[in-house]
Amino acid sequence: MRAIDIIEKTKNKIPLTEQEIKWFIDEYVKDNIKDYQVSSWLMAVCINGLSKDETYYLTKAMLYSGDTIDLSSIKGIKVDKHSTGGVGDKVSLVLGPLVAACGCKFAKFSGRGLGHTGGTLDKLESIPGLTINLSEKDFINQVQDINIAIIGQTKNLVPADKKLYALRDVTSTVNSLPLIASSIMSKKLASGSDIICLDVKYGSGAFMKTIEEATELSNLMIDIAHKNNKKVIAFISDMNKPLGKAIGNKLEVLEAINCLKGGGPKDLEDLVVTIASYMIYYSNLSDSLNNAKSLALEKLKNGDAYNRFIKLIKHQKSKISSFESFINIKEIIPLKSKENGYIEEINALDLGINAMLLGAGREKKEDPIDPDVGILLNYQVGDYVKKDDILLYIYKNDKWDKNIIDNLYKAYKFTNKKLTKTEIIKKIIL
Amino acid sequence: MRAIDIIEKTKNKIPLTEQEIKWFIDEYVKDNIKDYQVSSWLMAVCINGLSKDETYYLTKAMLYSGDTIDLSSIKGIKVDKHSTGGVGDKVSLVLGPLVAACGCKFAKFSGRGLGHTGGTLDKLESIPGLTINLSEKDFINQVQDINIAIIGQTKNLVPADKKLYALRDVTSTVNSLPLIASSIMSKKLASGSDIICLDVKYGSGAFMKTIEEATELSNLMIDIAHKNNKKVIAFISDMNKPLGKAIGNKLEVLEAINCLKGGGPKDLEDLVVTIASYMIYYSNLSDSLNNAKSLALEKLKNGDAYNRFIKLIKHQKSKISSFESFINIKEIIPLKSKENGYIEEINALDLGINAMLLGAGREKKEDPIDPDVGILLNYQVGDYVKKDDILLYIYKNDKWDKNIIDNLYKAYKFTNKKLTKTEIIKKIIL
Repeated sequence: MRAIDIIEKTKNKIPLTEQEIKWFIDEYVKDNIKDYQVSSWLMAVCINGLSKDETYYLTKAMLYSGDTIDLSSIKGIKVDKHSTGGVGDKVSLVLGPLVAACGCKFAKFSGRGLGHTGGTLDKLESIPGLTINLSEKDFINQVQDINIAIIGQTKNLVPADKKLYALRDVTSTVNSLPLIASSIMSKKLASGSDIICLDVKYGSGAFMKTIEEATELSNLMIDIAHKNNKKVIAFISDMNKPLGKAIGNKLEVLEAINCLKGGGPKDLEDLVVTIASYMIYYSNLSDSLNNAKSLALEKLKNGDAYNRFIKLIKHQKSKISSFESFINIKEIIPLKSKENGYIEEINALDLGINAMLLGAGREKKEDPIDPDVGILLNYQVGDYVKKDDILLYIYKNDKWDKNIIDNLYKAYKFTNKKLTKTEIIKKIIL
Repeated sequence: MRAIDIIEKTKNKIPLTEQEIKWFIDEYVKDNIKDYQVSSWLMAVCINGLSKDETYYLTKAMLYSGDTIDLSSIKGIKVDKHSTGGVGDKVSLVLGPLVAACGCKFAKFSGRGLGHTGGTLDKLESIPGLTINLSEKDFINQVQDINIAIIGQTKNLVPADKKLYALRDVTSTVNSLPLIASSIMSKKLASGSDIICLDVKYGSGAFMKTIEEATELSNLMIDIAHKNNKKVIAFISDMNKPLGKAIGNKLEVLEAINCLKGGGPKDLEDLVVTIASYMIYYSNLSDSLNNAKSLALEKLKNGDAYNRFIKLIKHQKSKISSFESFINIKEIIPLKSKENGYIEEINALDLGINAMLLGAGREKKEDPIDPDVGILLNYQVGDYVKKDDILLYIYKNDKWDKNIIDNLYKAYKFTNKKLTKTEIIKKIIL
């Protein structure tokens, strides 16, 4: 086989066989195929697409390019969750402890944030002392003991994805449904859980801009999961506006804690509780979705979910005793409304980018982040504000861009008409 | 500017500006943009195309990526010729001396063969002692003295094309009209001639498979030439069958000599004389195309063209005194017809590939070639043959592939019906 013939086929929309895709990925991981050949193929995939079968073969080739995690020694049904990335997305920090408190086995490998989107690892690491590096054995033991562990990917888990993702990032080949689906699913399948919940976000702050694209991606991932005999549930959720009110690592940890104590913003709680209900129900810990939901809500109210969160961070080596003076910030700048009206839009992408400019996120993978900075909304979409009401607070340290204030004002749209509140989850695909 | 934004635009079919293309090419030549980014962009160009304007900008950026040749010190109108590559294409070896004998200034930088197509430099170098390396000064002096010089590209002529072509070759991005047009035209424009004749070949043995593709490529190149205030004439010629009867370097030199003496095969002579007529006429050396043609035919008959060829090779340092025992070959294998009939097809691609397998051509750029081997046709398309008549002679040394005989038989198609002879040139675009 020759790399060039494989590239040529995809260029000419001729489907590749399972053997061809496996060979191409294996040889790339072994450095026998050059980056410049793979990037040429990736661009052909971006423009011409891949069939469902090809996407499945690609996922399989990536999945077996390195180690896979065997969770079979953990009793019960293991659940995992993945978000396609959004602004203010602290779902895992709430969902994990909540379902663990309900009896689910939440075994999660998380990622870091990039661009305008945040990552669970960065949020966890903003908690002093907390480690996201556990051995596979310690990871398994912790899930067995306290039903939950959230760590970084081990080094040799899906090495093909690491190489491909780094290359896609610099060759404008990120935005492709088959490439996104195979990247997510190879990692999720390699992580060994029995049930995978996918939070597929669409809108300005997400990679998928429309609900149609998000649906297509969901169906692609569900197809791959079924071909691998895995249970997958896709939740298509709205990312036109930020999720909750906090954007920035420590600010999001605090909001997650509020939510774990039953006092979180409604959109965040709705999303978490819905996903939790499916996890609980499909883990056979409840006889109906409705009862699963009641159980989840109860655990938020009675402190069990919060306690499980504290157990999690203690097990992962944090010695923090209180979140009282958790955030160390030089300046908090309030942004006051210039008009009266209902908030019609808070553009998630704009908020994400400006949080990044403050230092909350990374432009490039190597960039450092500042866990203390960020943006805290005072109102959400649909709320009524008067002129001079504070729209949001900017948490800043040294990093600053003179356009941030203007940028943030531009992220807002107002209307005189009262808005009908909309659901955060638009579709659930089983 | 960022490479990734430029790639993204072409991926999304958003036209690039002149500045963007210039920056991208300049930075690539300076090694500031990586091969893997450029190959991703090249694939986007292959699939999505470029506009005429973008193709012009790309050509210009490539043209000025290195040195350009100034031929203004040579008196008169300088002519150049380029073929898009074919099987048995020895046109330059005949055309150059012919038009030089008619008074044209033929200043040509040639290339080497690759794959199933041959290159003028390889053919010239098969003549003992001949050099294709002249300094720019010697090149100019020789054209001034004897009206002709044919040499290899100087090192810093269009370095962007050298880098891009090497990358295209291994990333399945060769076959793209804007990339082919900009590659050819940047080199031709950098070479400094006033009139450029393009022999654009189509058919099995050419890069363009159809006359429509060849026409599109021609129009693209003519558009670029006009935007650079250059006269270009495109000759669209048939490359479904080999040109002439000889394929292989020395065999082609001998056929060129026959043609220069007025005894060449009709298809070759027709093509050469037609291109020569336009060169002569547009060099103001004749008052009509018809008279130009008569002049060319006369120079073939009276020995002037052949004498100019001898002058050319002597000036380029060959000491050869006779072509009598020019070819040193271990074995000549005749291939006998298995049937009676008119030859309907001799597939040029098949002939080219099998000549390459004998060692006449290169699979990869680094491969050595054997100047003595090749294939000599005994009959051409349209001729009538009887069973056991010799179709062709295989000139072989040590290199051999057991399938060559079978391959060559398969290149032939026969018919019982007499064929109407067709013209070699199908279209001339001014």
